[in-house]
Amino acid sequence: MPRVKKDKGKIRIIPLGGLQEIGKNLTVIEYENDMIVVDCGLAFPEEDMLGVDLVIPDFTYLEQNSDRLRGVFLTHGHEDHIGAIPYLLRSVQPPVYGTKLTIGIVKNKLEEHSLPFAPDLRTVSAGDTVRAGAINVEFIRVNHSIADACCLAIHTPLGTVIHTGDFKLDITPIQGEMMNLTRLGELGNKGVLMLLCESTNAERSGFTPSEKKVGKSLEYIFTSNPDKRIVISTFSSNVHRVQQIINISADHGRKVAVTGRSMLNILGAAIELGYMKVPKGVLIDINEIKRFKPEQLTLITTGSQGEPMSALYRMAYSDHQQVTLGRGDLVVLSSSAIPGNEKLVGRVINELSRNGVEVLHDSAMEVHVSGHACQEELKLMQALTKPRYFMPIHGESRHLAANRELALEMGIPDRNIFISEIGKVLEIDSRGARYAEPVPAGQVLVDGYGVGDVGNIVLRDRKHLSQDGLIVVVATIDEEHRLLLSGPDVVSRGFVYVRENEPLLEEAKQVVQRSLEAGLRSGEVRDRMRLKTRVRDDLSKFLYHKTGRKPMILPVIMDV
Amino acid sequence: MPRVKKDKGKIRIIPLGGLQEIGKNLTVIEYENDMIVVDCGLAFPEEDMLGVDLVIPDFTYLEQNSDRLRGVFLTHGHEDHIGAIPYLLRSVQPPVYGTKLTIGIVKNKLEEHSLPFAPDLRTVSAGDTVRAGAINVEFIRVNHSIADACCLAIHTPLGTVIHTGDFKLDITPIQGEMMNLTRLGELGNKGVLMLLCESTNAERSGFTPSEKKVGKSLEYIFTSNPDKRIVISTFSSNVHRVQQIINISADHGRKVAVTGRSMLNILGAAIELGYMKVPKGVLIDINEIKRFKPEQLTLITTGSQGEPMSALYRMAYSDHQQVTLGRGDLVVLSSSAIPGNEKLVGRVINELSRNGVEVLHDSAMEVHVSGHACQEELKLMQALTKPRYFMPIHGESRHLAANRELALEMGIPDRNIFISEIGKVLEIDSRGARYAEPVPAGQVLVDGYGVGDVGNIVLRDRKHLSQDGLIVVVATIDEEHRLLLSGPDVVSRGFVYVRENEPLLEEAKQVVQRSLEAGLRSGEVRDRMRLKTRVRDDLSKFLYHKTGRKPMILPVIMDV
Repeated sequence: MPRVKKDKGKIRIIPLGGLQEIGKNLTVIEYENDMIVVDCGLAFPEEDMLGVDLVIPDFTYLEQNSDRLRGVFLTHGHEDHIGAIPYLLRSVQPPVYGTKLTIGIVKNKLEEHSLPFAPDLRTVSAGDTVRAGAINVEFIRVNHSIADACCLAIHTPLGTVIHTGDFKLDITPIQGEMMNLTRLGELGNKGVLMLLCESTNAERSGFTPSEKKVGKSLEYIFTSNPDKRIVISTFSSNVHRVQQIINISADHGRKVAVTGRSMLNILGAAIELGYMKVPKGVLIDINEIKRFKPEQLTLITTGSQGEPMSALYRMAYSDHQQVTLGRGDLVVLSSSAIPGNEKLVGRVINELSRNGVEVLHDSAMEVHVSGHACQEELKLMQALTKPRYFMPIHGESRHLAANRELALEMGIPDRNIFISEIGKVLEIDSRGARYAEPVPAGQVLVDGYGVGDVGNIVLRDRKHLSQDGLIVVVATIDEEHRLLLSGPDVVSRGFVYVRENEPLLEEAKQVVQRSLEAGLRSGEVRDRMRLKTRVRDDLSKFLYHKTGRKPMILPVIMDV
Repeated sequence: MPRVKKDKGKIRIIPLGGLQEIGKNLTVIEYENDMIVVDCGLAFPEEDMLGVDLVIPDFTYLEQNSDRLRGVFLTHGHEDHIGAIPYLLRSVQPPVYGTKLTIGIVKNKLEEHSLPFAPDLRTVSAGDTVRAGAINVEFIRVNHSIADACCLAIHTPLGTVIHTGDFKLDITPIQGEMMNLTRLGELGNKGVLMLLCESTNAERSGFTPSEKKVGKSLEYIFTSNPDKRIVISTFSSNVHRVQQIINISADHGRKVAVTGRSMLNILGAAIELGYMKVPKGVLIDINEIKRFKPEQLTLITTGSQGEPMSALYRMAYSDHQQVTLGRGDLVVLSSSAIPGNEKLVGRVINELSRNGVEVLHDSAMEVHVSGHACQEELKLMQALTKPRYFMPIHGESRHLAANRELALEMGIPDRNIFISEIGKVLEIDSRGARYAEPVPAGQVLVDGYGVGDVGNIVLRDRKHLSQDGLIVVVATIDEEHRLLLSGPDVVSRGFVYVRENEPLLEEAKQVVQRSLEAGLRSGEVRDRMRLKTRVRDDLSKFLYHKTGRKPMILPVIMDV
């Protein structure tokens, strides 16, 4: 079966995020003069990105080619797939396509950013195909930990590229339909040129359990704890999980109160858009809980990642306005810790345990299932679509490597598997596939209102400051007469506890004074840089010898 | 059976570390006028302890009562049980007791610290009893992830207290004997007053597998990879693990080279003290590996926690002098990530995967087993010793709470279970057990050579500096004439990338200038604090409005 049509032009696959990293998923797909973007997500900062709020892709390539950009196509409404849209739309304004819930979430998000124009948001349904120049983009239903998720079949004259987005197979979904295996199989039978396949769980064997599994665990927990107030924290975007909690609570005659800003926001949107059905009289305001006995209540809350200031965190630390937790309460963490958050989650569990609260979490009970395909599902995706070329996406190197192993196992030849990286350009035409010249790509750091004004130098300084603190040395000199007029003053922050170390700082001052005087005598006064370097070196040597630390030293020398 | 002997004085149990926290294990046990210390460990700093190297217990109580201190008794040679000894010995010098390997490791450690006196280290064997005033301390063999570990039976005229140290039951230990269940059972039959029991794995069901299990997994890995160089990283103190790797390598005709300073150190000590047996000709120097084909080699290395600068890290990042890893190499992480290190470990796995190295780790294969008792073993400890009172130790609140549940399950009444915390004093006499006045306890931070000179204020400043950086504002004034003589200069570090933000910093300077001039006019010049506060407030407001950030602002105003 000839899967590559002859003389039908060229496809280019350009990931700008989501490969060799977690988050900020963004893939550019081009066919000749037409370009589309799949997803536009953000990432959360790594530990060494001190003070950074979030990370977005480098949009340079999109800005440079905005005239060819026919649209942004969103697979689902998670932050790592939609979170960078407000930043992209500052420079380019293509139409943005997504299913109803996805677009609903994007709309909320854009309102917070108050852009000076009306964004062009277009709602589609699973099964729809959108024309984008010579490219046709077909939305196909998949299951995931958020409702209304799709994968995309990107039809070009040269052939079809399938982008899985994030997916799992849920044979018994809570609401909505099972992933459309049939359509994927049909496309496979017609011939799929390339599969871009997510890799999150590529290291995990078997199948990811159905969301229904969590319902069964929760049912058991509710049945065996009829005398306790039950508090459940989960990801606010997991509306199916929340739906299950509400249903089970209603069955057990409990009222449900919701707390946490993002949980209230998403729930509002989900109910309004018809993604959730709440039995009458079950939901109550958090301020009403005093009217009910603990055992008549279920609380649904944010904070499953142990985020300080989240509702669960505040409840644990007795800082929540309506709820204080203690003996007699049962907390269920219906979630798993995102890598890097283990300590934060642990802290909340500890604080709850200390206060006598019973805590059930992932490792103990099956109170959470993943939203991502495990190895058998990933192989199933390949088996149905039978792609000629394969590119693992959405994952760190280890995940991409594991997904590659699966493709080899499924019989895709090594030469047709491409482990790419951001900015790398894979070109496909009738003669084959190969890498071409890369395009600009990277990570842009957002800190406060600043986008991209924090880079390596700033981070290196923050790191240095965080380790051993800072010493500022200030002196006023008379350059002409080579005189020290005032100072030196030595001010420290984050170095030692000043009150208990006055002798050390006094000695430091004398070191600086001697250093300055020597510098002035030697005539370095004319070369301010050299004078500063001398002071910095002398003081640094002295402090390291005394304390074993290397604070940042900042000499400021003024001339009157 | 009367377990508490009448009118026989009072026991006090005082944890100074290891409860409601991981690490820095130290328990004080007193009988009337005699006091002993069990273990003296360090902890690694939490993420928010910026720049801190390690954490040790507050020794104030020991210093205040040094005349009653009869000895320090060590259960085993891990850092969280012995690491703070060099710091304790600076102020008090009791004899230190431990088994041969434990004392050997302590000796090495003390040499690095070069104390100005000869420490009194005393080697004992499992089965020995040491007299410490009216207290007799009996060392009883347990299994753990380091050789030569013991628990302690602390015999007093009032009754016996058992301190488990860290333990597991290994029915088929690699070397040495199985945990002495018989002796523990004998003590239980005679009557145990109190059990202090470790809690690390109290949340995990079942039994911890034998160390032999790892050998079987490794055997399988060696057999199925006859053509690859095999690199195994593990904890350097796990001499049994290393012994197994050497044995299996020898069986497969491989030479073994060791790399990483701590691995070489501990191996040296273990071989010298007779804890390891290396077949002749198997160990080679890392510099000799060039003489052998990859498939003839096993490399044993440090770095199982992803520590930057460890041997494995350097191999992964092509920065190791003798070894570069790539396609054809197999790396086994024979370890699990200590909570908080997941990201570091992940980074190394990613870098190895990126370079085409195959990586096997805990979650995929059974290449690691824990050194701590799981729930069934913890219950077995209780079943044998049948204690009257129970105190879970060595763990965060969640672990202590889980261990308490096990005690309840085993029939110990709630009133006889004590979840304590550091500094809390539990007194036991013939009438019962109750908490008494607490003693000083806490965490002392070690940063460079400084012990205790970094506290909350310094850490708060480091945190502030790390988030948004720093602005130093310097000006020279003539106080008498209320004149601004020089400046203001505005210097920033870690705030924004200066070169691209000169207009912002220029504006900031003008804000400061206006602020200073207004202050000088208003006569604040006499109150330097008020002038500084004015400048800080004005600049802070301006910067937050412009950037959404709150850098630390440090005004230095000099008078000529």
